[in-house]
Amino acid sequence: MDAKYEDESLKFFSLNGNLPLAEKIAQVFGSKLGECKIKSFSDGEISINIEESVRGIDTFIIQATNRPVNDYYMELLIMIDAMKRASARTINVVLPYYAYARQDRTANPHEPITAKLIANLIVEAGATRVLTLDLHTVQVQGFFDIPVDNLFTMPLFAQYYREKDMVGDDYVVVSPKNSGVQRARSLAEYLDTTIAIVDQGEFEEDEGYVIGDVSNKNCILVDDILNSGKTLAKASELLKANGAKEINACASHALLSGDAKETLEQSKIANICVTDSCLTEESRHPDNITYITSAKLLGEAVKRIHENTPMSPLFNKVDKEFL
Amino acid sequence: MDAKYEDESLKFFSLNGNLPLAEKIAQVFGSKLGECKIKSFSDGEISINIEESVRGIDTFIIQATNRPVNDYYMELLIMIDAMKRASARTINVVLPYYAYARQDRTANPHEPITAKLIANLIVEAGATRVLTLDLHTVQVQGFFDIPVDNLFTMPLFAQYYREKDMVGDDYVVVSPKNSGVQRARSLAEYLDTTIAIVDQGEFEEDEGYVIGDVSNKNCILVDDILNSGKTLAKASELLKANGAKEINACASHALLSGDAKETLEQSKIANICVTDSCLTEESRHPDNITYITSAKLLGEAVKRIHENTPMSPLFNKVDKEFL
Amino acid sequence: MDAKYEDESLKFFSLNGNLPLAEKIAQVFGSKLGECKIKSFSDGEISINIEESVRGIDTFIIQATNRPVNDYYMELLIMIDAMKRASARTINVVLPYYAYARQDRTANPHEPITAKLIANLIVEAGATRVLTLDLHTVQVQGFFDIPVDNLFTMPLFAQYYREKDMVGDDYVVVSPKNSGVQRARSLAEYLDTTIAIVDQGEFEEDEGYVIGDVSNKNCILVDDILNSGKTLAKASELLKANGAKEINACASHALLSGDAKETLEQSKIANICVTDSCLTEESRHPDNITYITSAKLLGEAVKRIHENTPMSPLFNKVDKEFL
Amino acid sequence: MDAKYEDESLKFFSLNGNLPLAEKIAQVFGSKLGECKIKSFSDGEISINIEESVRGIDTFIIQATNRPVNDYYMELLIMIDAMKRASARTINVVLPYYAYARQDRTANPHEPITAKLIANLIVEAGATRVLTLDLHTVQVQGFFDIPVDNLFTMPLFAQYYREKDMVGDDYVVVSPKNSGVQRARSLAEYLDTTIAIVDQGEFEEDEGYVIGDVSNKNCILVDDILNSGKTLAKASELLKANGAKEINACASHALLSGDAKETLEQSKIANICVTDSCLTEESRHPDNITYITSAKLLGEAVKRIHENTPMSPLFNKVDKEFL
Amino acid sequence: MDAKYEDESLKFFSLNGNLPLAEKIAQVFGSKLGECKIKSFSDGEISINIEESVRGIDTFIIQATNRPVNDYYMELLIMIDAMKRASARTINVVLPYYAYARQDRTANPHEPITAKLIANLIVEAGATRVLTLDLHTVQVQGFFDIPVDNLFTMPLFAQYYREKDMVGDDYVVVSPKNSGVQRARSLAEYLDTTIAIVDQGEFEEDEGYVIGDVSNKNCILVDDILNSGKTLAKASELLKANGAKEINACASHALLSGDAKETLEQSKIANICVTDSCLTEESRHPDNITYITSAKLLGEAVKRIHENTPMSPLFNKVDKEFL
Amino acid sequence: MDAKYEDESLKFFSLNGNLPLAEKIAQVFGSKLGECKIKSFSDGEISINIEESVRGIDTFIIQATNRPVNDYYMELLIMIDAMKRASARTINVVLPYYAYARQDRTANPHEPITAKLIANLIVEAGATRVLTLDLHTVQVQGFFDIPVDNLFTMPLFAQYYREKDMVGDDYVVVSPKNSGVQRARSLAEYLDTTIAIVDQGEFEEDEGYVIGDVSNKNCILVDDILNSGKTLAKASELLKANGAKEINACASHALLSGDAKETLEQSKIANICVTDSCLTEESRHPDNITYITSAKLLGEAVKRIHENTPMSPLFNKVDKEFL
Repeated sequence: MDAKYEDESLKFFSLNGNLPLAEKIAQVFGSKLGECKIKSFSDGEISINIEESVRGIDTFIIQATNRPVNDYYMELLIMIDAMKRASARTINVVLPYYAYARQDRTANPHEPITAKLIANLIVEAGATRVLTLDLHTVQVQGFFDIPVDNLFTMPLFAQYYREKDMVGDDYVVVSPKNSGVQRARSLAEYLDTTIAIVDQGEFEEDEGYVIGDVSNKNCILVDDILNSGKTLAKASELLKANGAKEINACASHALLSGDAKETLEQSKIANICVTDSCLTEESRHPDNITYITSAKLLGEAVKRIHENTPMSPLFNKVDKEFL
Repeated sequence: MDAKYEDESLKFFSLNGNLPLAEKIAQVFGSKLGECKIKSFSDGEISINIEESVRGIDTFIIQATNRPVNDYYMELLIMIDAMKRASARTINVVLPYYAYARQDRTANPHEPITAKLIANLIVEAGATRVLTLDLHTVQVQGFFDIPVDNLFTMPLFAQYYREKDMVGDDYVVVSPKNSGVQRARSLAEYLDTTIAIVDQGEFEEDEGYVIGDVSNKNCILVDDILNSGKTLAKASELLKANGAKEINACASHALLSGDAKETLEQSKIANICVTDSCLTEESRHPDNITYITSAKLLGEAVKRIHENTPMSPLFNKVDKEFL
Repeated sequence: MDAKYEDESLKFFSLNGNLPLAEKIAQVFGSKLGECKIKSFSDGEISINIEESVRGIDTFIIQATNRPVNDYYMELLIMIDAMKRASARTINVVLPYYAYARQDRTANPHEPITAKLIANLIVEAGATRVLTLDLHTVQVQGFFDIPVDNLFTMPLFAQYYREKDMVGDDYVVVSPKNSGVQRARSLAEYLDTTIAIVDQGEFEEDEGYVIGDVSNKNCILVDDILNSGKTLAKASELLKANGAKEINACASHALLSGDAKETLEQSKIANICVTDSCLTEESRHPDNITYITSAKLLGEAVKRIHENTPMSPLFNKVDKEFL
Repeated sequence: MDAKYEDESLKFFSLNGNLPLAEKIAQVFGSKLGECKIKSFSDGEISINIEESVRGIDTFIIQATNRPVNDYYMELLIMIDAMKRASARTINVVLPYYAYARQDRTANPHEPITAKLIANLIVEAGATRVLTLDLHTVQVQGFFDIPVDNLFTMPLFAQYYREKDMVGDDYVVVSPKNSGVQRARSLAEYLDTTIAIVDQGEFEEDEGYVIGDVSNKNCILVDDILNSGKTLAKASELLKANGAKEINACASHALLSGDAKETLEQSKIANICVTDSCLTEESRHPDNITYITSAKLLGEAVKRIHENTPMSPLFNKVDKEFL
Repeated sequence: MDAKYEDESLKFFSLNGNLPLAEKIAQVFGSKLGECKIKSFSDGEISINIEESVRGIDTFIIQATNRPVNDYYMELLIMIDAMKRASARTINVVLPYYAYARQDRTANPHEPITAKLIANLIVEAGATRVLTLDLHTVQVQGFFDIPVDNLFTMPLFAQYYREKDMVGDDYVVVSPKNSGVQRARSLAEYLDTTIAIVDQGEFEEDEGYVIGDVSNKNCILVDDILNSGKTLAKASELLKANGAKEINACASHALLSGDAKETLEQSKIANICVTDSCLTEESRHPDNITYITSAKLLGEAVKRIHENTPMSPLFNKVDKEFL
Repeated sequence: MDAKYEDESLKFFSLNGNLPLAEKIAQVFGSKLGECKIKSFSDGEISINIEESVRGIDTFIIQATNRPVNDYYMELLIMIDAMKRASARTINVVLPYYAYARQDRTANPHEPITAKLIANLIVEAGATRVLTLDLHTVQVQGFFDIPVDNLFTMPLFAQYYREKDMVGDDYVVVSPKNSGVQRARSLAEYLDTTIAIVDQGEFEEDEGYVIGDVSNKNCILVDDILNSGKTLAKASELLKANGAKEINACASHALLSGDAKETLEQSKIANICVTDSCLTEESRHPDNITYITSAKLLGEAVKRIHENTPMSPLFNKVDKEFL
């Protein structure tokens, strides 16, 4: 990738969600983040002033909507409104983590579909394109009628495990819950393994059981969102009880809420690999966590959007030269 | 249910998709279908004339979009347009089978999301509400911003198997592919069984394997769409090879395309239970198929929509008095 | 016209409606059609995959919506959706024949306005511009709020008849029905003739009569849509009965439905000139039909759209250098 | 019709276009017009204040957009905005004359389609339904996606001529221009006559000629818009020159612009029958004009809209009890 | 007001913004708040479940958007989405305090207009009507195209001061900044006083000066939003320096951010009268503050919206029977 | 400014509102106005034909909506529609005077918000950007969701008075009504003066009084819209009565309706400075009026819009090189 990319028709802006990741993405272009001032008034209102002209410019707004999620979404919506009124040519929203993505259906009567609401708000504010990373369900793409490019993290994790030679018959990729089978399937194809499922009930007191054969195998648990760590921890217990050997795990989005650090450190999981899509204080990181960056993948996607070159190689399992 | 329901502010209309089902739904109200003339010109254009006034009326248009799917969708869109211009108070679309629902994401680059397109077209034409039955993925509900009530068929199948006492430890509910685990999970809860998965590859030549324990158990395969029957047939082979005893199957929508009749009759499946959401000629029905009707469920939902009473009991697993 | 036109910012795609015409239009640019795969599943659903990148490209989708009209419209809508999500710069729809254009008003109460519905669907799907050829009524242009360029076929027919010296006082241009007077008027101006009208009733058993003087004159019947051929055939009978000499006919869109071949061959019409806007099997073509191509006219229009040069010369009766 | 109709959920408001007609329509309901104050400031701005509550009310705004057409359209749009913000339940616009209806297509390149623009503005302002009288072209109905009921004046004229026994073989209904054939056709069916056409050129100096047989017949010219009277006057000259006996004329909308009074009084036309859809000062009325009212027809339509009873009898040529 | 109001077609729901006020508004109807569960997940996402049917019901969602403003707006948007999908008949949003209302224009280049963004989001989510209390600028009403009723607090403050006989020549109503003159003007009319203005600069170090005569008069400062208290405190200093006698103040919305308690207690202001539109902990209330309730005013407005009776008496300065 | 600016991708068009100003703006670019024919038919309808191609062009439509305001707005809307259908790349509306801007809120119940209606109509017709000059209230910018650049006239007036050395302690800038304080504040900052306010009542018979100190000072009255001149005249009386020395005035938009000439000539105002945003016959200009042009300011703004360079310097009080 060309480190000296210079293009005045393109500007990056980062909001408060994940500044380090935004800076890394800009570096892919040998570029700096655009100037904008985000203030919080004493009454809690946010005020944004873009401090350079974006008239006729292709703008990329980078915002991870990790905690505090509502403030970060409001920052995003206000920023989009400002860009629109300041006559940006295009307003491209880069959402390494799309909060509320799990509220994608009415599980019970009288429920909102908040993931759709979020899509509607982003479009209403004026976004012209969205770039996401490993959406909780791929159908959320269809919540938008503007172009959405959803990048996958599986190639990143695949590369990580392949470099460690964690492939083949001694391994099994495991979904820690019954709704994540396809994600497990995808990683398993990269690593040439079978898959298994831990069928955990909805409630903590449900026992759960393992579907598929894990005895005497090294397990790689795979999930998209790592929130409290309880799902992974409980899955690792059940796997051990079913005769599993070493257990590792990977997850795309590391929210690490509540007691995640303790829960994961005390679990049976040797190592948890996550991306830097979410930003949390270092004090919340469990000792057994490893971060890999998604900046190059996201940066390359931005480049292709901006240059109107095909995005397809980024989704291709064989051609992985961008890695 | 009151057989003498009479309400002049409500009218049912059926298009050509599934007239028998539409008549049964109307009978739930002791009512007849409204008059409308659907013609096909020699050049293939459809012409629709509603032959009674719908001014100020709550209208329910019943259309199953089985084959020929594009003609049936066009009938639907034209009918909605006619209703809108004829000043119907509300235009409620009843779609027992929502064709194109499987095209709900861009699996490869440069693909449409046709399930979303269909949602957009229905709303653009003028529908004010949609009633569906067992959508392929529940996220399709979020493709709409008008109210969508998605009814489930699992309670119907559960009742069918319970009456035959096909419950408990001797049985296992099996998803014939890795993406249908939640549907299997839901039926298993009704029947107090464990679940298993047949992980078939995308391509016919892929071998596939069974995840979970099925040996010496009676299997109930469960899927939403029964198209060519190959998925179920192949799954039954693999289950038998893994030691399964009797194999039964159920599926919400029986399209029975191509050689489905032969494929299913020659398979290892004893009996296949389906609903009447799709209409096909009787000559295409395999000998080992059983139809149960979804008319009462749909009719009850229509009644609740029209009377503004809560829909939630229809989704409730315990209160099944409507069955 | 430059046979070696090469412009990478422009791509043509043809759907299944009229591939030969699409190829001819592309040849106007010395270009080939873009790759896209259109599949029909066993259950009748259409699937489309665009097989090259259209990111940032001006795309032209060519689709004639002759029979099977509903399948071809659905192909078109799905293709537009795919283009939109694949980030095409503009999505230009070329509709040599606009099916449903005759359903442009509510002739009776409770009728749809399907021509408007079609316009709404095309726009909702994401088209940014439409190019049509001799719309049944010009008001259909106003059904859209995106730019629509409606090309006329009269200059093509005028050139055809002028080359044969079929002009002046021996000739009369005749509208075969009372609603086509303006079209007759337009051709008459090119050929320096008077006009006459055959006033046929709505129903086949209506007798009809000729308004205006045709005795001892050669007649040129002119219509836009040639469907079953009955309207032209009956008009020719009435003209002969009123003393007409040779009768010829022209029509923009040759649907040739039902018994059109027989009806026209057995009619009093010497020769029928039509354009290639619609595609039908050669076996359906009557012996007395002559095809002239609209490809150069459509191709020139596409060129002007793409190069932002004025379209007006194409509508100008004098400056016909493009012919 | 019930003279004592009383319904508090319905209110009529008239703007300045045609107050006498509005009052007559209200009288159909035994009702008075609602209070609203329309002021014109010294700088030409219009200000409207509705002086009674319309919260939750079905409102009917009656406005004829005769001269000054732009002021009257602006009055209408402002009134609709006020109704919307004052929470009217429905906003029904009654337009006895729809100005700009003739600008319904782009006759030359770079032209607006003002009739569509007007439709868009009315809908954007907040109207929920439109009631028109004899639209210049029926396709304008399709410019709207809200319900539009377009009433016809032909039954009114038919009744007028039938009462005078002006029917049958001695009469011919004549369109004064080639674009009005269908309107002539419709009246001819009521009066059991044949039709003829006066084909006038676009420009005043064009000679024009008569198509069809009028010699020794009484002619009834029929048009929709009577503006300067020149079209009718010139047609009457040509008819006389072709041997016509007495010439009468009817037109739906009497704008009577410029020298219409003189032109018509000096023409060969014995009597011109028009409706009261447009309001002009009496001093502009030619001596040979007769006004018939459209108030009962419009009032009956309003009643059916409000009571949700079918509008179809008003379009039915046989059932004319409302006349 | 009828304490026993009972109407099953109406339901109130309160979010977390100002529960006590919501309960008081419901009491105006002798009614209770509807059940809904608002949860906050460990990752900061909000989840809402409405626990009773709202199908066909007129719903009123009461939410004050005081601190934490972004969470409360997101609660509101999610609730509206849920109501829409649960088929509420109307969704009426009651916003006693409209946060972000001050960001109503682009004061500097490249700024958002967040007050408009908020309006757009509320409408996009699905609200059908909004009820506000003393908007910062009345033009914000025009940011909506759905009906907005903006109630004024001045009658409440007028009544408060009149009961204390604080009227007439000894008093002067003072705007503490140059942009609040009209609000001062309005209160002055109720109390029969003159007005004055404190022209404070934008920056804290600006000196400011008094425009108008305040010496030897009792001053009543009036503002809409009381945030940090600095504006009022500084104004009171300047008034004292200009010879004012007793100084009182009133403000519609008491945010009381930061050191407001200390600032106001140490100021020259004897008493500050505010409404209960915003909810803050009691520990933040300055000793010299008095709360008056807006519940009866808001409740009466809701009643009139629901019963479709005119809202105008609530805006009328003379007819104050509702107070 | 470069007098030889030539750019074929940019075209100016003027409607009838203010042709001289439009020509001056075009001259800023060394350019001429594009050809378009605006006709008024005898029935009052406007017809517009753009006489050159705008396909792919950035168009700027210049229209001042002074009297006759409704005709000029209709011209504008029709022109925008024509531009849209003729495929202009962008449609930029330059409104030196925005009529109806004062109707920006519902002052009384049941009133429209006509300023918002106008914004909605302009956007609905197809405008992509708006450029205004000194809007009556800046919040009107937020009535649009397309970019709006609102230029200020204060720098023009500041330069005018500074050149005359009318600055400092001997002067006071006075708002002639309580709602114009901020405009006075802005000019005062440029001229280093204090401000005062004339508080006139709504009604002519109200007495009014001066707030602030004006005795022995030269006053500069400042307002945005100069309509009948009564507000300024009455203010000057009151200022004189309060001991003011010389009185001057400035106003952005000189409508000069009714008896403005007489009223202003007979007033106490020495000189009134206005811009050329509105066009009136010279015979209506009072002797004591001075016109300064806004053409360079507007032209520079157009240039920055077209070249995508920042607009901010035009709003900056210090960097005034464009003057």
